[in-house]
Amino acid sequence: MNDFMIKTLVISSHPDYQHSLSQRFFTESAKVPGVKMHFLDNLDDFVLADELAMLSACERLILQFPLYWYNVPAKMKAWIDEVWSAAEIALRGKEIGFAISTGVAAKEFQLGGNEQVTFNEILRPQRMMAQKYQMTVLPLIVLDQLMYKTEAQKRTFVVNYQQLLTMPYPFSFDQKQQWFADRLTRLTEEKPQLIPLLTQLENNHELIQDLDEALASLEE
Amino acid sequence: MNDFMIKTLVISSHPDYQHSLSQRFFTESAKVPGVKMHFLDNLDDFVLADELAMLSACERLILQFPLYWYNVPAKMKAWIDEVWSAAEIALRGKEIGFAISTGVAAKEFQLGGNEQVTFNEILRPQRMMAQKYQMTVLPLIVLDQLMYKTEAQKRTFVVNYQQLLTMPYPFSFDQKQQWFADRLTRLTEEKPQLIPLLTQLENNHELIQDLDEALASLEE
Repeated sequence: MNDFMIKTLVISSHPDYQHSLSQRFFTESAKVPGVKMHFLDNLDDFVLADELAMLSACERLILQFPLYWYNVPAKMKAWIDEVWSAAEIALRGKEIGFAISTGVAAKEFQLGGNEQVTFNEILRPQRMMAQKYQMTVLPLIVLDQLMYKTEAQKRTFVVNYQQLLTMPYPFSFDQKQQWFADRLTRLTEEKPQLIPLLTQLENNHELIQDLDEALASLEE
Repeated sequence: MNDFMIKTLVISSHPDYQHSLSQRFFTESAKVPGVKMHFLDNLDDFVLADELAMLSACERLILQFPLYWYNVPAKMKAWIDEVWSAAEIALRGKEIGFAISTGVAAKEFQLGGNEQVTFNEILRPQRMMAQKYQMTVLPLIVLDQLMYKTEAQKRTFVVNYQQLLTMPYPFSFDQKQQWFADRLTRLTEEKPQLIPLLTQLENNHELIQDLDEALASLEE
């Protein structure tokens, strides 16, 4: 694992994992260096010491689940009820992200949509859990109606999710450019034909930095 | 059971029922005619048909639980995940109430309190569940820090909770007066010395009705 990689733990809960396209999509997308998956539904019981050791080892925690009745699934709530109260030392001040899936179109979760309520409003208990331990909440990821997505939309989602998993926070434009460059660098080891793309990206990066500096000097 | 009694089903969840004063207090307070308690933590599995039969038979549903991490306990979420999606016909348009307990003072759940967030905000997922089936949401009941309550405060709470369980909605002043009179009437069968109190209450009721009518005629 590279030094600059974030160590991320994904806590995943889905009662019908085998039959959920969204779950498999999340899981496949998370197969990147520095990310560990932890599937709650494989466990009958939680061993508190094991859970706390995992939480202590990570730098970023992702809770990934389908919305069931505007809330986490029962198994994730069982994990929260058993683990969270003991996890303050393991988690305080770390980063936390939420990756949710829903069979309802995301656009329905707003004023005038069929659901009227926003994800922000629904996820209030989870936000409070994070706040209690002064955790930094990362941008929310929503995978809605996977079956209707085009291939291009799916690829965009994979990038967004992988950034949530591994990109240093805050997610600035500069950070995103650096993140793509790092990934391209690794890919060029296998596929040298990508080198011109990498060069282009690096040139763009320098150009933007030059423009930034020029702008800053004009504003002085 | 009298004709005018509401048939109320209380779904109760607490993982450590035996050691919770609040739970026992809720349970003792609910021992009134027309109210059935259903303890989820006694069950390993739910039989969907049994749960739906209970929901179909009730006119008013109360979810009673301690707040665990700003949310329902895991066992209640398990019940919701297994039952709610199939319960639309059994529940549509009925009344629903929430009776929650917390070890934190209720005054902390507001702007400037230690929790900052309100119960209304926390209970959004439950409100949405009710809204989905066009249920009427009854006034929230919160039992906070039972161990610090005086006997008078406890008695007031019992009355409020019993009204949530059995009083016809909406909970108007007139409705409350009628509710107390009904209970006094039953008590006077055993304790005739209470009859003067009942007469007083009925006189008050008539006086208020007279005043109401006088006021209405003045406004014409």
